Amino acid sequence: MVKKIKLGILGGGENSLIGILHRIAASMYEQYELVGGVFNSDHAQSVEFAEKLGIATSRVYVDLEALIASESSLPEEERMQVISVLTPNYLHFPMAKKLLENGFHVICEKPMTTTFEEAQKLGEISKNSKTVFAVTYTYTGYPMVRQMREMIHEGQLGKIQKVDVQYYQGWINPIIHDPEKRSTTWRLDPQKSGISCCVGDIGTHAFNMVEYVTGLQVKSLLADLNYMYRDNRMDVDGTILLKFSEFVKGIIRSSQIATGEENDFTVRIYGEKAGLKWGQENPNYLYLLQEGEPMRVLKPGHAYNSELSLNGTKLPPGHPEGIFDSMGNIYRGVAKAIKKEDYNPAEFPTMTDGVRGMGFIEKVVQSHEQGNVWVEL
Amino acid sequence: MVKKIKLGILGGGENSLIGILHRIAASMYEQYELVGGVFNSDHAQSVEFAEKLGIATSRVYVDLEALIASESSLPEEERMQVISVLTPNYLHFPMAKKLLENGFHVICEKPMTTTFEEAQKLGEISKNSKTVFAVTYTYTGYPMVRQMREMIHEGQLGKIQKVDVQYYQGWINPIIHDPEKRSTTWRLDPQKSGISCCVGDIGTHAFNMVEYVTGLQVKSLLADLNYMYRDNRMDVDGTILLKFSEFVKGIIRSSQIATGEENDFTVRIYGEKAGLKWGQENPNYLYLLQEGEPMRVLKPGHAYNSELSLNGTKLPPGHPEGIFDSMGNIYRGVAKAIKKEDYNPAEFPTMTDGVRGMGFIEKVVQSHEQGNVWVEL
Amino acid sequence: MVKKIKLGILGGGENSLIGILHRIAASMYEQYELVGGVFNSDHAQSVEFAEKLGIATSRVYVDLEALIASESSLPEEERMQVISVLTPNYLHFPMAKKLLENGFHVICEKPMTTTFEEAQKLGEISKNSKTVFAVTYTYTGYPMVRQMREMIHEGQLGKIQKVDVQYYQGWINPIIHDPEKRSTTWRLDPQKSGISCCVGDIGTHAFNMVEYVTGLQVKSLLADLNYMYRDNRMDVDGTILLKFSEFVKGIIRSSQIATGEENDFTVRIYGEKAGLKWGQENPNYLYLLQEGEPMRVLKPGHAYNSELSLNGTKLPPGHPEGIFDSMGNIYRGVAKAIKKEDYNPAEFPTMTDGVRGMGFIEKVVQSHEQGNVWVEL
Amino acid sequence: MVKKIKLGILGGGENSLIGILHRIAASMYEQYELVGGVFNSDHAQSVEFAEKLGIATSRVYVDLEALIASESSLPEEERMQVISVLTPNYLHFPMAKKLLENGFHVICEKPMTTTFEEAQKLGEISKNSKTVFAVTYTYTGYPMVRQMREMIHEGQLGKIQKVDVQYYQGWINPIIHDPEKRSTTWRLDPQKSGISCCVGDIGTHAFNMVEYVTGLQVKSLLADLNYMYRDNRMDVDGTILLKFSEFVKGIIRSSQIATGEENDFTVRIYGEKAGLKWGQENPNYLYLLQEGEPMRVLKPGHAYNSELSLNGTKLPPGHPEGIFDSMGNIYRGVAKAIKKEDYNPAEFPTMTDGVRGMGFIEKVVQSHEQGNVWVEL
Repeated sequence: MVKKIKLGILGGGENSLIGILHRIAASMYEQYELVGGVFNSDHAQSVEFAEKLGIATSRVYVDLEALIASESSLPEEERMQVISVLTPNYLHFPMAKKLLENGFHVICEKPMTTTFEEAQKLGEISKNSKTVFAVTYTYTGYPMVRQMREMIHEGQLGKIQKVDVQYYQGWINPIIHDPEKRSTTWRLDPQKSGISCCVGDIGTHAFNMVEYVTGLQVKSLLADLNYMYRDNRMDVDGTILLKFSEFVKGIIRSSQIATGEENDFTVRIYGEKAGLKWGQENPNYLYLLQEGEPMRVLKPGHAYNSELSLNGTKLPPGHPEGIFDSMGNIYRGVAKAIKKEDYNPAEFPTMTDGVRGMGFIEKVVQSHEQGNVWVEL
Repeated sequence: MVKKIKLGILGGGENSLIGILHRIAASMYEQYELVGGVFNSDHAQSVEFAEKLGIATSRVYVDLEALIASESSLPEEERMQVISVLTPNYLHFPMAKKLLENGFHVICEKPMTTTFEEAQKLGEISKNSKTVFAVTYTYTGYPMVRQMREMIHEGQLGKIQKVDVQYYQGWINPIIHDPEKRSTTWRLDPQKSGISCCVGDIGTHAFNMVEYVTGLQVKSLLADLNYMYRDNRMDVDGTILLKFSEFVKGIIRSSQIATGEENDFTVRIYGEKAGLKWGQENPNYLYLLQEGEPMRVLKPGHAYNSELSLNGTKLPPGHPEGIFDSMGNIYRGVAKAIKKEDYNPAEFPTMTDGVRGMGFIEKVVQSHEQGNVWVEL
Repeated sequence: MVKKIKLGILGGGENSLIGILHRIAASMYEQYELVGGVFNSDHAQSVEFAEKLGIATSRVYVDLEALIASESSLPEEERMQVISVLTPNYLHFPMAKKLLENGFHVICEKPMTTTFEEAQKLGEISKNSKTVFAVTYTYTGYPMVRQMREMIHEGQLGKIQKVDVQYYQGWINPIIHDPEKRSTTWRLDPQKSGISCCVGDIGTHAFNMVEYVTGLQVKSLLADLNYMYRDNRMDVDGTILLKFSEFVKGIIRSSQIATGEENDFTVRIYGEKAGLKWGQENPNYLYLLQEGEPMRVLKPGHAYNSELSLNGTKLPPGHPEGIFDSMGNIYRGVAKAIKKEDYNPAEFPTMTDGVRGMGFIEKVVQSHEQGNVWVEL
Repeated sequence: MVKKIKLGILGGGENSLIGILHRIAASMYEQYELVGGVFNSDHAQSVEFAEKLGIATSRVYVDLEALIASESSLPEEERMQVISVLTPNYLHFPMAKKLLENGFHVICEKPMTTTFEEAQKLGEISKNSKTVFAVTYTYTGYPMVRQMREMIHEGQLGKIQKVDVQYYQGWINPIIHDPEKRSTTWRLDPQKSGISCCVGDIGTHAFNMVEYVTGLQVKSLLADLNYMYRDNRMDVDGTILLKFSEFVKGIIRSSQIATGEENDFTVRIYGEKAGLKWGQENPNYLYLLQEGEPMRVLKPGHAYNSELSLNGTKLPPGHPEGIFDSMGNIYRGVAKAIKKEDYNPAEFPTMTDGVRGMGFIEKVVQSHEQGNVWVEL
């Protein structure tokens, strides 16, 4: 019988939305078996939740140390192989670090750490280990994002000349305008969520997407953040100008005060020969623009898509898949890596993406604080 | 520990798309545990597939008889409780019949049977049993379809005055125009797929949707089918006029020759006070039309939605969910029924829907063959 | 100096929306000069309105007889050449008849007459005259409708196999449900608007569009109308099944009780090789569907469009044109015909379209009243 | 008889698209009569064109001097009252100046001048004259842009907190990448089109739109332009960060290298209470976003719109109007001003808008050249 990969989860307890997302993603391709973890810092709640999930409580641990100690003592074929880290941001680094040092594969939520320094340290540790490390920039799992990447890599756009990515939400609006709420929300507390709120949470998705689909690297950036109130130290809106080279530029616009927007994450890539557009809220449409040609609308599951894209679609065209399916594709990529099967490196974001993402956040804040100047990345 | 419901599957073997849909749906809310079944008529392949899924092969049976015999002899808490029937259409009836007679809960793919007579028989058997019986009209699981139903039931549209449902696909186009292919495709063989191709496969979804969202019953219908070629006996396109009462009418349009369409299933319900529109390919948008008012666009996960709708959404607004999530909602409803928890009868389609669906198909064909006349339903 | 065509208008007085539409359309390509007419049955108001328009009142007449008498006595180069008939429906026939008999070119609003018989008579008269006669099925002037026609004629869709046209409005809703209003509205009075309300007003546009874009002729039809109340004798909703040949079918759906819809006129034509979709409320988009290919979105003004389409666009792509521009294109076509310049017969709808349109209405009502049976057209 | 306003046109000769736009706009509400002008620098062509238009050639002049001399000598009621300046950019200033100094009303295409200095001079001259001066920022004439303005002014969005305007085109793509073409195109020649290409042509529309709809004034800006090649001195892409006050910011993104885009001009305004979105290519839709509420889609012609918006719609909802209608609304506003009728100052853009627009362009270039720094406006 095919052995499923034994998965543990840190965090993601009852009522955790990210927990649901990861568990469903893990189960989607029948590659993983959730065997335990630390779902909640309160052990009793952790156990209670495991029972609800129908998981043996013997592998629900008091804390990460206990997990490592116990699991490491199990025979290799029984041991948890990969751990998903879904805890609050400030715990990502210490937990991921211990896991790597103890030979576990890691699937880490973003932002990977709270500082660039931590990210670099983690990168060093990872380099010397043989473990798989994935950062869940979920949106790279969408079939049409993957198609965008492949089309660009194949040269269908020609040389890239302009990049425009937007990630607009409005959810922080009722919080930011309330002095009481804005001083107590964890997202606006640098101790808990790192040095940036908006850019750290969603701007980083935009940044990762830019580099993922274009294959280009941002060389320098100029950022303008908005804190909205003098008593708030964290950005709730940020625009970042990007330079890839002298004449290849881009823009990332991220906001949590775009009133009424939900998760309006859109990508536009323009090359000398053609342009591509995609939006997260309607993820099954990819728009190809060519001068003097009718716009083409590509959809998942068609034979005209690349292999990387087609692998991410489970049903024929016209059956909409969504964000769970996107994350499921990332989990499947990680499974292939763990099993040492062939896979396309674009199947999941790695430590490299995680480190660059943290570098991006740090440089954005630095550019803003230095008066909106260009900073090398 | 919470016990998961023990699930068996008939059909849905390797490469079966419907199998993937059901397995993911079953796993989504952590209510079911797939323990075995008959995945393939070839037992060796069935076993091989079970191994790929990581399922113990001891409960992979040679055939349904073996499954029933063996499972029935197990202690109640170990026994398969519910069986999903994903086999070819003509096997639905005999299999579902045996399962019901032996006390298993059943989740049956549509069309429930190949004839109305079979459907009625199954209905009789079901009436006398205490088992749960669900027919997977998948699309009723979408949060915005459920919202549509609730808004109509609450009277937000006023008295319904016009219904217009479309289900357009183009996939049969390359088959129907090829004499060789159209004489060998199982979909166009009445022995294998029943008396109707297009109406039986997708028109029936449209019919179920109409009754599901409006709560009205179609009283009579007039159908015009298109066979495209004289040597073909099965419809590939059908338009059906509906009467709910003297002045309340509707239309179902279904086609498999709508060249280039994928799964363009759209619903429009107009009442005296307002109208609602929804489309399957963009399932997360529901359009509310009111005379002299700006159109409103409702989306899943918002507090303004009904409880029935909100229960079907797992993440906050802006995170698109798709067809797997829709089917997952149906499976969750069935789980509640099996566990005798409280549930809304609208959480899954039942035997009643299945019987009406088969009656619809039969009456449509009858109306057409009698020269496009009105037939009572 | 180039002479503009001298235009007179019957009806279309102050506050007449159709008057604005025709006057702007006439001026758009600098082909016409409005010189007079009978704008209102009340002569004083007619004169007052002419003054507002800045037109010499000497050619504002008491009635059509006076107009004909006076204008006919003018030297040919001063005489009104073409008259637009924008009066209430029941006046179209007598007025158009007199104009034709006296050698005037005519631009007639639809429906051309109130009965098929009148239409046929008018057709006879027209046949024997040398005048140009146009019926303003406005929507055929849109560049993308013209493009649709040309693509079909060139065979880009292959053999047409299915036609689906919808024209949904909701405006009559507040009237039809009010016993007082529904008994006093002229649209619901057969004396004033002919034997059909919904089909006569908008279904006829749908019918004309079907024949215009496909180049096919409807051979027979089966109609189901809805009167909504027993005390109302006029349809406010109608669905019509169409047959072009044994296996080539279509549907026209028209409604004035589609609550909240404005002018939702959409056209879908499916051929063996491809499909085309267009909608009036977003008239600058034409969707080309091909099996296994990305959908293509065509827009006006691009070189990939046909000459007939390009002639109907005044600005480069991306500058939206609307309904005035569409009517302007029809007026320009008529101008070419009057000036005996070369023109494409598809540039404006003619007497033939008008006669067929009235035949359609009559047959629809007949089919419905005979119990929803097939009627030859 | 009502006298129409006597209109002259400079430029806009045969094949001039802008000429068609202005002539149709002028005729739309029957307020103007085109009596002559200088359509072409070649007098013979100018006369020939006038003949095609059906205009008396006696008032087609050799040049502006001749026009002024001759028209000024006419009795006041015969004289041209307003002149539309549609000549190449560098002629706007000298021509508008002379016209103002000679007491003509002016409708000037944008950009109003080629430098800020010229604009300021023109502003001074205008201040001391009693003439009407309009700059044709065409897009402010759209009914839903006007509705946006009114809703914001009424406070429906609450305090504005974020502005995002995009104007993307791709037309210069084939020119900019061709060394020969980019050195010979007038748009890229500062002598002919001023110091900026992209920002001067379309960024200025975006800037005017921002101030028009929000009623706010940009206080400072930081710009990053893209020239694409070292041998090109003119921007073909520009991103501009805006500050209205410490915590109220905005972004203008303009591009002519957004491959495949036509005229993708979109506006997003977010306030504390709600957001509004509009796009030029689908100008009849205005999207209202409110936290926790279904998005509302407003359309022209509905009673829920403001008077300013309703005045700009000629037909009932569902009849799409386009860019000619938008410009027509501006011409009508100018007509009201000339006739000294009551009008809303928002009915047409004035000298103030023209001067600010030129200031914007100058400051954008300055910010870029100084190394992307903040510059006061």
